[in-house]
Formats: sequence, C-alpha cells, structure tokens
Amino acid sequence: MRIRVVNPNTTRAMTDTIERCALAVAGPGTLLDAVTSEIGPASIESHYDEALSVPGLLAAIRQGEVDGVDGYVIACFGDPGLDAARELAQGPVIGIAEAAVHTASHLGRGFSVVTTLARTVGRAADLTEHYGMGRFCRGIHACEIPVLALETDPDARKIVTEACRAAVAQDESDAVVLGCAGMADLCAHIRDEIGVPVIDGVAAATLTVQSLLMMGLRKSGRGEFATPPPKSYTGLLRSFGS
Amino acid sequence: MRIRVVNPNTTRAMTDTIERCALAVAGPGTLLDAVTSEIGPASIESHYDEALSVPGLLAAIRQGEVDGVDGYVIACFGDPGLDAARELAQGPVIGIAEAAVHTASHLGRGFSVVTTLARTVGRAADLTEHYGMGRFCRGIHACEIPVLALETDPDARKIVTEACRAAVAQDESDAVVLGCAGMADLCAHIRDEIGVPVIDGVAAATLTVQSLLMMGLRKSGRGEFATPPPKSYTGLLRSFGS
Amino acid sequence: MRIRVVNPNTTRAMTDTIERCALAVAGPGTLLDAVTSEIGPASIESHYDEALSVPGLLAAIRQGEVDGVDGYVIACFGDPGLDAARELAQGPVIGIAEAAVHTASHLGRGFSVVTTLARTVGRAADLTEHYGMGRFCRGIHACEIPVLALETDPDARKIVTEACRAAVAQDESDAVVLGCAGMADLCAHIRDEIGVPVIDGVAAATLTVQSLLMMGLRKSGRGEFATPPPKSYTGLLRSFGS
Amino acid sequence: MRIRVVNPNTTRAMTDTIERCALAVAGPGTLLDAVTSEIGPASIESHYDEALSVPGLLAAIRQGEVDGVDGYVIACFGDPGLDAARELAQGPVIGIAEAAVHTASHLGRGFSVVTTLARTVGRAADLTEHYGMGRFCRGIHACEIPVLALETDPDARKIVTEACRAAVAQDESDAVVLGCAGMADLCAHIRDEIGVPVIDGVAAATLTVQSLLMMGLRKSGRGEFATPPPKSYTGLLRSFGS
Amino acid sequence: MRIRVVNPNTTRAMTDTIERCALAVAGPGTLLDAVTSEIGPASIESHYDEALSVPGLLAAIRQGEVDGVDGYVIACFGDPGLDAARELAQGPVIGIAEAAVHTASHLGRGFSVVTTLARTVGRAADLTEHYGMGRFCRGIHACEIPVLALETDPDARKIVTEACRAAVAQDESDAVVLGCAGMADLCAHIRDEIGVPVIDGVAAATLTVQSLLMMGLRKSGRGEFATPPPKSYTGLLRSFGS
Amino acid sequence: MRIRVVNPNTTRAMTDTIERCALAVAGPGTLLDAVTSEIGPASIESHYDEALSVPGLLAAIRQGEVDGVDGYVIACFGDPGLDAARELAQGPVIGIAEAAVHTASHLGRGFSVVTTLARTVGRAADLTEHYGMGRFCRGIHACEIPVLALETDPDARKIVTEACRAAVAQDESDAVVLGCAGMADLCAHIRDEIGVPVIDGVAAATLTVQSLLMMGLRKSGRGEFATPPPKSYTGLLRSFGS
Repeated sequence: MRIRVVNPNTTRAMTDTIERCALAVAGPGTLLDAVTSEIGPASIESHYDEALSVPGLLAAIRQGEVDGVDGYVIACFGDPGLDAARELAQGPVIGIAEAAVHTASHLGRGFSVVTTLARTVGRAADLTEHYGMGRFCRGIHACEIPVLALETDPDARKIVTEACRAAVAQDESDAVVLGCAGMADLCAHIRDEIGVPVIDGVAAATLTVQSLLMMGLRKSGRGEFATPPPKSYTGLLRSFGS
Repeated sequence: MRIRVVNPNTTRAMTDTIERCALAVAGPGTLLDAVTSEIGPASIESHYDEALSVPGLLAAIRQGEVDGVDGYVIACFGDPGLDAARELAQGPVIGIAEAAVHTASHLGRGFSVVTTLARTVGRAADLTEHYGMGRFCRGIHACEIPVLALETDPDARKIVTEACRAAVAQDESDAVVLGCAGMADLCAHIRDEIGVPVIDGVAAATLTVQSLLMMGLRKSGRGEFATPPPKSYTGLLRSFGS
Repeated sequence: MRIRVVNPNTTRAMTDTIERCALAVAGPGTLLDAVTSEIGPASIESHYDEALSVPGLLAAIRQGEVDGVDGYVIACFGDPGLDAARELAQGPVIGIAEAAVHTASHLGRGFSVVTTLARTVGRAADLTEHYGMGRFCRGIHACEIPVLALETDPDARKIVTEACRAAVAQDESDAVVLGCAGMADLCAHIRDEIGVPVIDGVAAATLTVQSLLMMGLRKSGRGEFATPPPKSYTGLLRSFGS
Repeated sequence: MRIRVVNPNTTRAMTDTIERCALAVAGPGTLLDAVTSEIGPASIESHYDEALSVPGLLAAIRQGEVDGVDGYVIACFGDPGLDAARELAQGPVIGIAEAAVHTASHLGRGFSVVTTLARTVGRAADLTEHYGMGRFCRGIHACEIPVLALETDPDARKIVTEACRAAVAQDESDAVVLGCAGMADLCAHIRDEIGVPVIDGVAAATLTVQSLLMMGLRKSGRGEFATPPPKSYTGLLRSFGS
Repeated sequence: MRIRVVNPNTTRAMTDTIERCALAVAGPGTLLDAVTSEIGPASIESHYDEALSVPGLLAAIRQGEVDGVDGYVIACFGDPGLDAARELAQGPVIGIAEAAVHTASHLGRGFSVVTTLARTVGRAADLTEHYGMGRFCRGIHACEIPVLALETDPDARKIVTEACRAAVAQDESDAVVLGCAGMADLCAHIRDEIGVPVIDGVAAATLTVQSLLMMGLRKSGRGEFATPPPKSYTGLLRSFGS
Repeated sequence: MRIRVVNPNTTRAMTDTIERCALAVAGPGTLLDAVTSEIGPASIESHYDEALSVPGLLAAIRQGEVDGVDGYVIACFGDPGLDAARELAQGPVIGIAEAAVHTASHLGRGFSVVTTLARTVGRAADLTEHYGMGRFCRGIHACEIPVLALETDPDARKIVTEACRAAVAQDESDAVVLGCAGMADLCAHIRDEIGVPVIDGVAAATLTVQSLLMMGLRKSGRGEFATPPPKSYTGLLRSFGS
C-alpha cells in the first residue's frame, strides 16, 4: 500500500516535517513518502498562493500515478486542488483540512481551528462548511505567524500554543484543529499543554487514506471524478494538456 | 492496541459476522474482538429495541474498561447509546452509522443508504443529520428484510444488492452505505455487482477507532463526556448505579 | 380524557412537584396523574442516566396502556425514550423539552434555555435542533445546581432566577425556557422577577397533549411509530420482550 | 378567558364555519367568538389580497382590545399581519399556519400541506420555513379550488380529500395540514377517509392560544412587539394613526 | 426606460432625499422619478406601520402601471408589500433591503446592518434570511434614531457613523448595509469615515432594476406572481377591489 | 469606467461571443473589452481544467491592473480563481455564476440551471450553495454538449433550448440560468421559446460590475482580500512570484 503526501508549497524543510508526522502514524504495511511541489509558491498564505499551488500539486499527482501510488494526502490546510486531484488519481485523495475537521467531530460537540494568518480564515471557514462540519466548528482563529516562520521563529511554538488555549476558552470547545501543515509537529506538545485533544490534519489524512485503501474504497466510478476529457492547453501550462 | 466491537443485540451469529469483517481491516498491531450483548433484544428493528439495547451495550463497555480495552465500535446502525458509552469509556467510541456516513462523504458528492425495515429509516435520517452529513445523503431506502433474515434468507444477498442498485439509480448517488451491521459481509459482493463504492460501517468504524488511537486522540476532557456523576439506581437496573 | 405524566427518574418528591404543576393547567375534563419510574436513576444528569431511564419510562407507558391512559408527558428535559414511547402508546406522547421550545417560539424572536449542570447542555442543544427550533434558540446556560438540589438547596430559587436574568441579558432573548422538570414550580416566581415570559415544559407538554387529544390527533398511522415487532429479549430486560 | 378568532376576509359564511370549528375544541372556561373583517377582500388568494386584508385584521384586533379579549387567532393560512397584531394586542396572537405546522411536527417525521390555489404555495412555504418547520414539510400541494368554492362547490370535499390522499402517497408523509381556514370543517372527514392525522389550523391555533393563556404566557416584554410608536397617518388609513 | 422609486411613507422630504440618491446612480438612458405614498404612516418604525404602508404602496404601483413605468424600487428597508407589488407590476420590483444585502455579499465575507430603532431589527433579520443572505450577515444593529430624525437631528450623521464603525469592529465585518432609506445620503460620508464599503439600498435597488430591464428580465411568467384574481373588496379599501 | 471581461479559456471565438453579449448590456459610459486567457485549457469541462485556467486568468487580471481596468468579469460558470482575482484587483471582480444566481433569485421563487456536461454539475452546486442561493435552486441539469460544440454543433441551440424547457417542467421553476459562458448568445432565443426568464451570467455579471462601480463600491479594505504577501515562486510559475 503506497501513500504519497504532497506538500503543495515548494519548501523542502516543511515537507520533511510533514513526512515525519505522517510516518509516525502510518501502519507497518504502508509505504509512505512525502514530496515537495516543484511549481509555485514557497508557502501558501493567500487565495492567490493557493490557486497557484494547484498546477504543481497536479503535476505531483500525475507523477504519483506513474509511480504506482495508491492514495494521496494534500498537505496544505486549504486543500488546494482536491477535486481536480481526484479526477487524476485512481485511488483516494484526502485533504488535511477535510480529514482534520471530520476527525474533530468524533471527539466532542465543538472544535476550534487555529490557523496562521488572519487572511486564511475565510478559506478555512468555506472548507469546514463544505465538508458539512460547520455545525461543529465554534471558531477559526489566527495566530499571525507566517507559515515558514513556524519552522524558524523560536517563539512560534509558544504563540501557537497560547492561541489554542485562548481559542478553547473563548469558544468553549472540546478540541482544537491545527490549521496548517507546518504545525504538524506541534500537535503532541500543544495537547499536553492545554489538556484537550489537538488534531493534526497530516496524521488524520494519512490515516484516512490508509483506511479507505484498507476497505478497498476509492472515488466513485460516476462521472464527476472520471479522468478529465483530453484537451489542448496553451502557454506556460501547455504540458498539462493532452 | 485493543479494540472491542460490541454487537448490541444478543444474537451471537451476527457477532461472528461482524467480528470477521472487523478483523479483515484491522492492522497487525491491533488486538480486536467482538462481544455480544447479554441484555436486550435479539435484533434491533424499532426505536423500542434500540432504546432497550442500551443497558446491555453499556454493561459491555463497563466490562471493556475492566478488560483494558482502548477503543470501541458500536455495531448497530442506530448507534445506540453512543453518548452514554463515551461517558463510560476512557478511549474513543465510534458508531457504525457515524463512521459510514463520514467515510461516504470522502468518495463523491452524494450517497444513498440502504437499510433493513422501513421503520428504521427515520433513525438513520436523524443520525445522518446529526453528524453533519445530511447534505451528502440523497436518500435512505429500506429493503424490508428483517435483520436476522439477512443471515438466513437465501434471497437476502440478491434483494439487498438490487435495493442498492435501485438506490444509486434513483438518487444519482456516488456511493452506497449499508444501513445494518448484519450486511457487513455483503459489502464486497455488492460493490462488485453495482460498480460504485459500498461502505460497511463495521469496517469503517473499526478503522476510525484504530486511527484515533494511533493519533493518541480520545474524547475531549471537557465536561459533557466526563464520567457520569455517582447515582443511586433502582429496580431492574440497580446494578448500574454506584 | 386521561393524561399521565411520567417522571422518568425514581424520586417521588420530584413527581409530586411535577404533578402539581401539571394539574394547575389541565382542563376540567382532564383526568391527570403523575407516576414515578420504578427502574433507573434517582435523577438524570448525564447521557448515561438518561439512557438508563428509558426502560423504566417504557414500563410506565406499557402500564399506562393497560390503565387506559389517552396521552403521556415525559417529564425530563432530555425527552428520554420519546420515539420508543410513541411506538408503544396509542395516543400522543410529548416530551417537556419538545413542548417548551415550541411554546417559546410563539412568544418572540429568540429564547434562552437555563438548565441544571453544564454537562446536560449538549443534549438540550441536540433536541432544540431536532425539533426545528434551533433558529429561535440564542443560548443554553447551566446554573450548576444538581437536579435533586433544586428541591433541597435553600439558594436554588435565587440561583436559577439569576441565571435566567443573566441569560436574557447576554442573549438578548425574549423568553426563557426552564431546562429541568424540577424547576417547574419556579416558573411563575422567575417570570415575576425578571419580567419576560418563562416557560415550564411540564405545563407546556400537558397542554400540548390535551390539545392533541381534543383535536382527536395521535401519532401517524404510518410505519415508523407502529407497535414494535415482537422480539425475544434476554437477561435483565427479558420481561420487555414478547 | 376570552378568545377571538378573526377571519381576515369579509365573507361571513366562512366566519361561521370557522367559529363552529373553533368552538368544537375550546375548553369549558373559554368564551370564544369569531368576527369577520370589515375591510378588504372577500377571500384571500394572492399576495395582494393578503396584504390588503391586514388593515381589516388590525382594526378587529384593536376592537378586541377594547372588548377585553385575552387572545386571538388569525384565521387565514397566510397568517396575515401576525407581527403587527402582536404589537397591538396585550395577549397572545397565533396564526393558523403557525399552529398547524407546529402541531403536525408532533405527529410524525414529515407532513404535507394541501392548499387551495397553486399561487398560494409560495406563501405557505415561506411561513413553514419561518416557523422552523421546513425540515418536517415534505411538500405543499394545491387542489385548485378557490377559497369561497370550498363552501359552495359540491365536489369540493371530494377534491380536497383526493388531493390529501395523493399528497401523502407522493411525499410519504405522516400527516396532512389543511392549508385554508375554509377547509376546517373537512378535517374529520378527510382523516377518516385517508387514515392519517389531518390538522386544521383553526382548531390548532384556538388550542394554542388557550394553552398560552392557561400558562399565563403572552408576547415578550422586550421591544420588538411593544405597542407601536404613535404616528401620523394619511389618506384612507388616517384613522389608523394616533 | 422608466424607473419609479416609491417611498412607502408619506413624508415628502424623505422622498426628495431618496430621489436624489437614486438619480445619482441611474444611467443616462433612464427616466427616474420618486413618488410619495398618499396613504399610511409618516414613517415606518414598527410591524404595524410597515403593514399599513402597503395599501399606499400598491396604489402607487397601480398608478405606475397606468403611467407606463417599467420597473420599481420600494424604498423602505422592510421591503413592504414586495410580493404583492410583483403581482401588480409587469416589470421588475426590487426592495432596498433585498438589493442591499445581495450587493454586500459581493464585497467580502460578511456584512453588518445598521438600522434605526431596535424594534426593526427583527424584520431586517427575517428579510436577510429570506433572501438567502443570512450566512453573510454578522450582525444587525440599531442606532436608536427615529426615521424622521435622520433628516432633522443635527447629531444624526455622527451617531449613525459611529454605530457603523462599532458594528464593523464588533462583527469583524467587511462592509456595512444602511438599514433605512432615510440614511441614503449618509452613505459616502460614512464610507469615507470608517474605511469599509457602505451600501445604500436605494442606489443598489435602482441599479438592480435598471440591470434587470437592460437584460429584458421581468418576474417569471409562472403563476405565483400573475395578476391577482379579481375580487370584491369592502369598506375603506373598497377601491382596491375589481 | 473600464470593465474587462476575461474568458479564462484560450478559445478566441468564444471570447468574441462573450464580448458581444457583454457589450449589448453595458451602459454608454462604460468602456468594455473582453480578453482571452493565454495560459491553460481550450475549454473548461472538469475540475482539472478549471483549476488550470486560474494562472491564465490571474495573468489577465494583473495585466488589467496595469491597463487601468476598473472592474472585471470572470466569464466561466465555474467562477475560477474568483477569490484570488479579488486579491489582485483594486476594483470589483464578479463571476458569471455568482451574478446569474443572484439575478435569478429576484425573478421568482426558484430557478433551474442548465449546464454543459454532467461532470460540471457538482461545481455549479457548490457555487450556488456558496453564494447563499441554494434555497432558490431547484435543479442543475446537463445537456451533454461540450463547451466548444456550443459554437459549432448545428443542433446545439435546439438541444439547450429543450433542456431548459424540460428543466422548468421538472423543477417547476420560475427561471432558468444558463450554466456556461458559451451559451450567452442563446439567451434571448431560449426565453422566447420557453416563455420564462432566462439568465445569461455574462450580461448579469457585466451589469453587476458596472453597478458596483457606479456606487463606488469595491472589495472590502479588510485583510482577506488585500494584496497577497510577496512570495518566491518556483518552476513554470516563477513569474507569478514577487
């Protein structure tokens, strides 16, 4: 069972963190690797970045199909390109926001999300609603740490932890969802500090893909997610056509 | 990692089927067993049966805690006693309806549920809505086979399969959720026959519990699911008090 | 016209309070009594208690059918066993949460609920949503008085009153719903103190049952609430089978 | 306890029917009468008619306050002028659509509405949603009998009955709500014919007002429904100013 | 292209303000005028006033049809008589609340409404929900200035501006909707002061009508909004019959 | 006032059609042009195509800002890249799906959408829900004509017309929304044929942008839609970084 975690930004250090967190939960029968997108932004902090991370993500999925990958995780909390990736892949593709909010709903009556910059809150809200989890989501909060600073700012861990603690208090939440793949390695620390369950979407999505594969489930055979019709592409993205 | 699947009806043959299906997906590091309730109805086909299956379920959870079980599956599509079980157990407890509808939402835009008797459709609708999955559910259909006849009626497999096929056609669904633990072993057959993903909640819930345990996640530490306050109990259920 | 109010906990003193409040609003042509459950918890303060109050409640309904009762009130704000009771009874069965939130919606644009322990808030929220009244409910608040202390704690009346006053101010509500049958006799006092309508579910449910009977309305003849199919029962609950 | 049922159209024969149906369910301690609007349309079959029935309705409420009436029923399924009437009246005011859909939700999982002309279906849908009952409403159907023909057309009873039967079959409903005050006296007949509960809003609203009065409940004391601020009125409606 | 803005209160000074604001945005090919209702309240500050403004509004629409008007704006934030006006008019009729909340949804993720008296908040909430814009509305706030004082109170501009500023801060909104036609001329000032988009419904509705006319779109030909059936009217409103 | 309509596919013939339809409704003071994307797919018929049309769209917006464009229309019914475009542009950006569904809601109680291929139905549903218009949308139907065949298939006009007629009949809708920019020039023909309002999103969005500009409204100044933070970009999309 081969699972590939795609980091849709181009920062390898972040891919390493993500891979470590995914490997920590994968089962013994699972071959898991993480890859870094080769096209697009160094980090995803706007609708613009997110939209422009999709070609790189889709190239990675296409390569994964060549490599015989069975299922994929999209390791950015905006779940960029999820529907398009599902068209390309034969097996399941799960976004980390998708997996995280579903998981949180099993743990109590309401959860909070803590994300990086305030400008990403809207996207997190859209996704939560889209997955049917809006009724369990009590608040989405920014800690105003840029994505890449999560790895480099010595205060990052403390700031995210305190943002989580404050979110639980304000929202009277039962659990916290970490709203950025770059927070994956903070998960256990924050849980220990604040005493409520904390969900890392990278781990949650890895396990969701593994579970779907274990059950032999893949995207439905009906039309919406069938292979895209062949199409002529122009300009920079010429190679994406067929 | 010890997972226990509780069959909240008292029919051992059904527990055997359930256990087989759960074991088929559990990971190598998982010790899994299935137990049969010792109190209550032989099958669950009404609100009355479902309500009266709860004491037996809770007794099984209590025993599980003594036995050092880490997580539980409630193997009846009405998810009887789920909230109360979460109060008793230290680890995660997942119902098969809960797991099945969440799983189905990863596979496409809409799913159908096929259940046993028409009188159970209302409960399935309530649960689907409760879990936030109402927007993905396109229809809930009965095949009018009593629960225990699933094991004994030679036509059962054919009837359930045709009900699934009809549901997909009528609802234009991407996937089918089997609405009874007793259908667990029909899952692969039906999928092969009708060509869309078919979800068995027993497998889905087993894997959800296993994933939660793998991530170290359990019910939230906040008050709603804390151990129930000690209480004097009277009459037949005297032994449930403290 | 015979109406029976069932107190699904086993505390007779609370039944007396409930009966008094129900009798105060019943019409002259109504024969009303209140009975105490003989099986289960002394008070209902958790999902566990609520689930385990159902067998006693159902036994009381079964006895009511023998006694020629025409309609029932379930006098606990968790509306335990409501669907199952509707299967057993020929006439209408109404829960006090159900009646209270419907009533509150006639009185203004939004109401608050004040309940006993914080751990019961989730159940009240589920029910409010289930009855379609979520859009009118602005908040559910606990006063942290245990159910039985409502009768014995000399400060109870004051504490509940102040919780109601605070709820109205915080939620900008038009009315308050009392979230426990044990608060029934505080209703008039609180209304006088805080100057907004206060709804006691025991009175509201009694009048709803009486009105349904007056109109000749009972549960629908369609399948979901038909008499449960006969079934073999095992163990402690053997006598509930047929 | 004085309850007044206001027929907001100007057809006395219809008021007589309405009064008979209201009296049939009112309690022995209730003084009930029905009055006919003196301003506006002979029947209400459009948004135009409904809007223009409101001045007459409000004049009747104003007279009722002079006459010492304790509570009111608005006997048209469009619930015309309900919010404005609540501002004028000291006691409760209930619309027959409001009461009917609430009542129907106690009887099963879903109801159908059968109304007169198709052009009134939209208003019925708005109201059902507004009262929070949209999740229980499975369909709203017209039988295309004009309001006043309900009293005069010898086939009316048959046509409405068949429309109800068809609605239940198509919607798989548990109950039927009659969507016109002029159908009030058909209620028992239709129930007997089609074998599911049939709700007449006139009876339901009369009993709701009576119940609210019995509980001492009236509109909330907060601002939205306080007496309207004094205002200069011009033209035909000069007398409505103060 | 003739557009008429109907002020449904009887205060000419307010009509002048409204007309000025509508003319400021109308295209060069548009003949636009504003008329004052001749029947009803001097200002609309209650459900009572709003209901009683409808006959005057409908008379103005009827006159407009005689005058060859192509489309109408209803210039009161309660959108009084909108459905009935649509039945009378051949061309489009748009309410200012309707246009304003739709417009606000194009400008960001959430808006606030600032209205006059607190007692009108409920109506604004109903309309916002009715138009499907509830998910974008983060709060509705009153500034407690009576409608006519908007023109006469020297502090009005300052008070409304500060209410808008406070609403944005409290609701974390992206835009503000002015909840009264009488605030139309404050729009640019407030936007300049608080630095977020501010929407005046008079301008928004004028442009919506003009756009619909430009596209040749009018109310649907299906039945709900067809010309009302002829009807005998009685009393003060006799002239409204046919 | 300069408005630019961006066709996010690379087919110039379709841009010509789109430009013609936009010009037909633009006001005399509006300078309007339409441009064709230079990067990406020849037509947009899958999530894959839609995602990969975004870089070309964003390049066109960036060029528009250089050219002094005041507002933009995204002329594909999937509204690709709308949020990202709003970050780049100083003025308003409107998608044709967004404008079309809002417009349809002004014309009656419910509308149908008729789109090209069945696999695009899901995206249309997501958008309709996202814009708050789900409650007005009664069905989304495919006519199974590929996008580019709309211009070349001699039967296209007939097939789309019949699909619209069938949608109205099946959904009992008041209006039809055309679900593809390539259908823009069919709008008047279909309306004449089927006799209900038909909405072309290109015209609707052009007028919405023009109206917003006329009111001086642009995206909110708050953070979500501020200019994206500068970022290093890699690979094919290097030039999109800063």
